[in-house]
Amino acid sequence: MKNIISKLNKAFESRIRLGIMSILSVNDSADFNTMKQLMDLTDGNLASHLKALEGLGYIQSTKQFIGRKPNTTYTITEEGQKAFKEHLNALEELIR
Amino acid sequence: MKNIISKLNKAFESRIRLGIMSILSVNDSADFNTMKQLMDLTDGNLASHLKALEGLGYIQSTKQFIGRKPNTTYTITEEGQKAFKEHLNALEELIR
Repeated sequence: MKNIISKLNKAFESRIRLGIMSILSVNDSADFNTMKQLMDLTDGNLASHLKALEGLGYIQSTKQFIGRKPNTTYTITEEGQKAFKEHLNALEELIR
Repeated sequence: MKNIISKLNKAFESRIRLGIMSILSVNDSADFNTMKQLMDLTDGNLASHLKALEGLGYIQSTKQFIGRKPNTTYTITEEGQKAFKEHLNALEELIR
């Protein structure tokens, strides 16, 4: 019996991870504060999910200073784009 | 700024919960063992997710004996159908 949920990626289980990957799939990049506002999150909550996705190689960050303020911008990697697409296909297959 | 993940339902975050709701959305009912095989799960893991979804009123169970063996069958409730549909719509909106 085919396991119907095996192709769903555990890394994208949380709503916040789905939100991050969606934002970075449709934008060239997004910075920390923009994502924080878009999903109404605390710094710590967003940071932990970003760190996990970066650790998996699905997103990457660039740190810079805007004036004297540190700013971190995120982009999706090719690997992230591929994994997220597979996850969405598996979701569609499951719910059709 | 509209919170883009607020309409996603936390109760359906895990792949197993998505799997259960999908199975019960496209079948009149499904019993414990069928779902266990379809998702390759342990008894305990599946039971905890079913208990949570039942507690939320999204599914309901019927216990009976087949021969001398206890058999529990699950069906989705109207409330469950509605909540799951809203979750899927929110998912589609997020990833479009």
